[in-house]
Amino acid sequence: MRANTFGELLRLTTFGESHGTAMGAVIDGFPAGVDVDLVRDIQPHLDRRRPGQSKITTARSEADRAEILSGVFDGKTLGSPIAVIVWNKDARSKDYDPNYYRAGHADRVWEEKFEHRDYRGGGRASGRETVSRVIGGSFARLLLPDEVSIVGFTRQIGTHIAEDIPHDLTMEQVDGHATRCPDHAVAERISDELKACKEQGDSRGGVIEIWIDGLPAGLGDPVFLKMKNRLADAFMSVGAVVGVGLGDAPAAAAAKGQQFHTGIAGTGPEAGISPAANGIQGGITNGRRICMKIYFKPASTVGSTAKKGRHDPCIVPRAVPVIEAMAALVLADHFLARRLDRA
Amino acid sequence: MRANTFGELLRLTTFGESHGTAMGAVIDGFPAGVDVDLVRDIQPHLDRRRPGQSKITTARSEADRAEILSGVFDGKTLGSPIAVIVWNKDARSKDYDPNYYRAGHADRVWEEKFEHRDYRGGGRASGRETVSRVIGGSFARLLLPDEVSIVGFTRQIGTHIAEDIPHDLTMEQVDGHATRCPDHAVAERISDELKACKEQGDSRGGVIEIWIDGLPAGLGDPVFLKMKNRLADAFMSVGAVVGVGLGDAPAAAAAKGQQFHTGIAGTGPEAGISPAANGIQGGITNGRRICMKIYFKPASTVGSTAKKGRHDPCIVPRAVPVIEAMAALVLADHFLARRLDRA
Amino acid sequence: MRANTFGELLRLTTFGESHGTAMGAVIDGFPAGVDVDLVRDIQPHLDRRRPGQSKITTARSEADRAEILSGVFDGKTLGSPIAVIVWNKDARSKDYDPNYYRAGHADRVWEEKFEHRDYRGGGRASGRETVSRVIGGSFARLLLPDEVSIVGFTRQIGTHIAEDIPHDLTMEQVDGHATRCPDHAVAERISDELKACKEQGDSRGGVIEIWIDGLPAGLGDPVFLKMKNRLADAFMSVGAVVGVGLGDAPAAAAAKGQQFHTGIAGTGPEAGISPAANGIQGGITNGRRICMKIYFKPASTVGSTAKKGRHDPCIVPRAVPVIEAMAALVLADHFLARRLDRA
Amino acid sequence: MRANTFGELLRLTTFGESHGTAMGAVIDGFPAGVDVDLVRDIQPHLDRRRPGQSKITTARSEADRAEILSGVFDGKTLGSPIAVIVWNKDARSKDYDPNYYRAGHADRVWEEKFEHRDYRGGGRASGRETVSRVIGGSFARLLLPDEVSIVGFTRQIGTHIAEDIPHDLTMEQVDGHATRCPDHAVAERISDELKACKEQGDSRGGVIEIWIDGLPAGLGDPVFLKMKNRLADAFMSVGAVVGVGLGDAPAAAAAKGQQFHTGIAGTGPEAGISPAANGIQGGITNGRRICMKIYFKPASTVGSTAKKGRHDPCIVPRAVPVIEAMAALVLADHFLARRLDRA
Repeated sequence: MRANTFGELLRLTTFGESHGTAMGAVIDGFPAGVDVDLVRDIQPHLDRRRPGQSKITTARSEADRAEILSGVFDGKTLGSPIAVIVWNKDARSKDYDPNYYRAGHADRVWEEKFEHRDYRGGGRASGRETVSRVIGGSFARLLLPDEVSIVGFTRQIGTHIAEDIPHDLTMEQVDGHATRCPDHAVAERISDELKACKEQGDSRGGVIEIWIDGLPAGLGDPVFLKMKNRLADAFMSVGAVVGVGLGDAPAAAAAKGQQFHTGIAGTGPEAGISPAANGIQGGITNGRRICMKIYFKPASTVGSTAKKGRHDPCIVPRAVPVIEAMAALVLADHFLARRLDRA
Repeated sequence: MRANTFGELLRLTTFGESHGTAMGAVIDGFPAGVDVDLVRDIQPHLDRRRPGQSKITTARSEADRAEILSGVFDGKTLGSPIAVIVWNKDARSKDYDPNYYRAGHADRVWEEKFEHRDYRGGGRASGRETVSRVIGGSFARLLLPDEVSIVGFTRQIGTHIAEDIPHDLTMEQVDGHATRCPDHAVAERISDELKACKEQGDSRGGVIEIWIDGLPAGLGDPVFLKMKNRLADAFMSVGAVVGVGLGDAPAAAAAKGQQFHTGIAGTGPEAGISPAANGIQGGITNGRRICMKIYFKPASTVGSTAKKGRHDPCIVPRAVPVIEAMAALVLADHFLARRLDRA
Repeated sequence: MRANTFGELLRLTTFGESHGTAMGAVIDGFPAGVDVDLVRDIQPHLDRRRPGQSKITTARSEADRAEILSGVFDGKTLGSPIAVIVWNKDARSKDYDPNYYRAGHADRVWEEKFEHRDYRGGGRASGRETVSRVIGGSFARLLLPDEVSIVGFTRQIGTHIAEDIPHDLTMEQVDGHATRCPDHAVAERISDELKACKEQGDSRGGVIEIWIDGLPAGLGDPVFLKMKNRLADAFMSVGAVVGVGLGDAPAAAAAKGQQFHTGIAGTGPEAGISPAANGIQGGITNGRRICMKIYFKPASTVGSTAKKGRHDPCIVPRAVPVIEAMAALVLADHFLARRLDRA
Repeated sequence: MRANTFGELLRLTTFGESHGTAMGAVIDGFPAGVDVDLVRDIQPHLDRRRPGQSKITTARSEADRAEILSGVFDGKTLGSPIAVIVWNKDARSKDYDPNYYRAGHADRVWEEKFEHRDYRGGGRASGRETVSRVIGGSFARLLLPDEVSIVGFTRQIGTHIAEDIPHDLTMEQVDGHATRCPDHAVAERISDELKACKEQGDSRGGVIEIWIDGLPAGLGDPVFLKMKNRLADAFMSVGAVVGVGLGDAPAAAAAKGQQFHTGIAGTGPEAGISPAANGIQGGITNGRRICMKIYFKPASTVGSTAKKGRHDPCIVPRAVPVIEAMAALVLADHFLARRLDRA
């Protein structure tokens, strides 16, 4: 089981326990000759994920400075594996009791599986593992054509749903609010609710929506590596994610075919393209925007633990760069795969 | 890209185009010495998936008889790859026009990707590919302990939602109605609607729900091979699936943490197990039922084509054994993986 | 363990037992749009490997006609998995006793491993498995540039060593003699010895040499997928092979560095290329001929069994197309990999 | 291409360039609960490989202290990926000229492949990469049963061939001489020759022989993951290795079958086991000693460069722990695979 490796051609292997020595990412299958600058290309994505960014996130304070150990020389990739680590600094292991199993977390089941476990802060099962994913995703982005954009944002937290979202939304706009909700009226209500949550030791889930634009038609593979299931796999592998949908899946399930399928069949240049497909037909991109929703359950740590510990009342805002990173990994893998499609 | 292979330790490779010579499955990594009987263990699952079962399915008539070419000797598996084929017989290739791109289907994008395509009935992108998955899944079931049960059923078609479902639902009960909806009052309404759909050249989507019981705690892997994302990947790789959720994902996203997380933290024997987790915590089974919803968009073929062609107005009922097969593949893979967990 | 799959990007999965229903090959990762003709491109290689070709090979008579089940349409590959089978026809299972373990064969150890085994003719461990490899290799050849040539030949059988080999040797010249030894004086001596061997129930091993020409520099990967170890892996996976060497390995081991390394260091266009490298430096091709020797032990079946059974006294001549097939698979894989090397 | 990962179930990924920041190893698929002590289990193997051990090795001085970054907690493995690094300290990059291509090395071909390369000391193509392999192998050893022993030794350097080797040779005996040749009379002659070589800027190759004892019958897989080709692949992936043989391959190729195959066919308990098989039949262990020869060409750096640089005149002695490490990785992988063989 390649349990710690993601991807087929571009492969990210992650390692590290939450309170161990370091978190790491090894990226293999990365082509040679790609310009990379740690400060410009990698660190900003880590900073977007970093704890302690605002009043609505955990108080754990990690500078999370990435160090490249291999694979890059003179500002360019070498074609050899790129290893990057982030040291764990602010790990307060004494906060954890080896005989205490947190509800909703992996503590108990991890012990059932492995017997021996690192009980400190979830160990390998901690959300801190996503540091490695963000590193991987930031490298993956370097393999995407300039016209490709990946923008994730907070569509919903609790029962607050953003409605007013510009069609040409940018990452900068998303980051303009600590909630990463680009509908600022809704964002303010979310912000208030999360502050109250924190005081009450309560938590919230929500929905991240991701828009991927600029993809050519013909990306993805037909059977087990369809674009839609690779993205689903990628997103569902993130801690608190409990569901994914291409567009609004529950609505699609209830729709009538003749209303849902608005595309034109026939022989012309646009024939066969379906606007309702959310960018993916038969598993392969059709050149339109991919829109997916990712559903998060409320954070597991609630009650008195939540009040005293260093936890986010809602991980959705900080999960945005993680979801984007996973999307970038899937896309870059498919862009590489595309080089192998034809004679 | 291992685009036609599913699984890590138990690997199903599928081949075949809808109107080619044969559909096939090669199952590798299957242990030696497992009793297998084609008529008892494999064919029944193919029969459950077969077209032409009732008035609400396609008129294409395929006996779909599986033939084992290798890997089984004297009624037991050999530890070598198991190859099984099903000949394509009722393939009417003349029904298809090479220059015609059906809407919502993969016709156009497949051509963008590969240039050369088998335009007959979707070729490799046809739902007929799931024959191979059902074969794979039926073998995978043989690796599961007796106490494990996998029951999928039609939870919803169009706007009709089954409500009255027995907690100890069996496959036999599900198969008791052509719609595979075990709430028979709702099933009848669905049946009527699908007949009308067929006449109108319309189609419907819906929701399959799958219940997996009898799993031990500790199955699944922590990071990229979590039980939840392996299942999501498996289900989303099926043709018309547009979303998956652990339990009711949209409801979880809107819930308050203190209400959602009802598990007990602490040190006792049940501590750390969360009833709200739908059987999976931190990606690993907790010994409770796994419940997932799989969302299907309406079938793509609508209008005059749907009236004259041989298509299902709704593929949800026939997709139930396919979804179960994918679940069986994921579970068997994890049961094998479990043998590698500890020293 | 991907025990029945060879290759990374171009993947050959083989299935079938010697006396089972059929032998098969599934080739995945093969690009779309490649012209393929069964009679022109595939069957001739099977014919070269086929038993019953001459007085010095086994009397088992198999037409070994390949049938393509999928992946090819209108004379071109589809980008989907190519499945090819060959039916087993002349299988005389009654010749085999389930409680009898042949010396030197896999009978006993296979039973130690799997407990249950197909005792008929070696089952999966039979040399007949190489039918599938030759099919895979014949497809792999279609991915190689025209200027690439792969020529294997019998360099030695028993103590007879071919000396007089033209530098521009062709497959046609090799096939000009049943022994596949292109030094015809030596070939005649080999032929006489093998006929005597057959009568005496004795057997011989030998050395196949393979010359690969026309490769560009820069093919192969630096660490675990070096060209030299991929070829070694490929060749050593063939039944009776007991050793492989780049050029004359024992001689290289005994050589003095200053005599062995005749290449020029420096900065000019030829600098760094080493004639002694047999075409591979640091695991990567240097644009010169690759020359490898593959050592075969004598066939295992000797004595009275050999006299009555249907066995080759020496498998080296028939192994030539198998070795070439394995080389073609490795090369095609690296040619695909090359598309991923750079930005 | 998984060019930097070795193994199927136990997977070693190596990273690092010779004059980069650090060399590293990530070991995934390692079971939980295995006792590991860095000083006792890992460092000694690194020390055996370390440069600067004696007058016949390179003057590059690296302490090569391993640091575990993840996967081990409280002295036991966690089941999560084990990451280990070794910092590069004594890297004198100014010794290297970017426009100079060394003969016999990968300099030129690496540039052909990737265009951009780390020209300092061979970069990724340096023998220093084997640091990571030795780390991987030292962990792999922890998965082997106590009765398994892996002993590699210098059988030959130049034309000096060790003859007098005790059948129960130990690693300690091998390490008793700087040449790792356990025939001390021959070892002394080798030692003298290598000192002379160093002064003359000459180099030597040789043969490492490896003996693997204590394996059960039934280890290995039948087709593409035979024990013999996995070992061949592993050994041939090491820098200067130009050939491998099971026992004495050239002698086997020249032998007569009736003399070579001394095993007994039949039905008794020893029937089917072949003493001539060097421990492997049909790719699977037979419970006897595996004996393999690994042929090394002379070190590439000769002449004036060799005199002034920091190079070994013969890498064979230092390659012994590397070869053993590769064997340990293959064996551990097969021991894990064995858990999956049967129902």
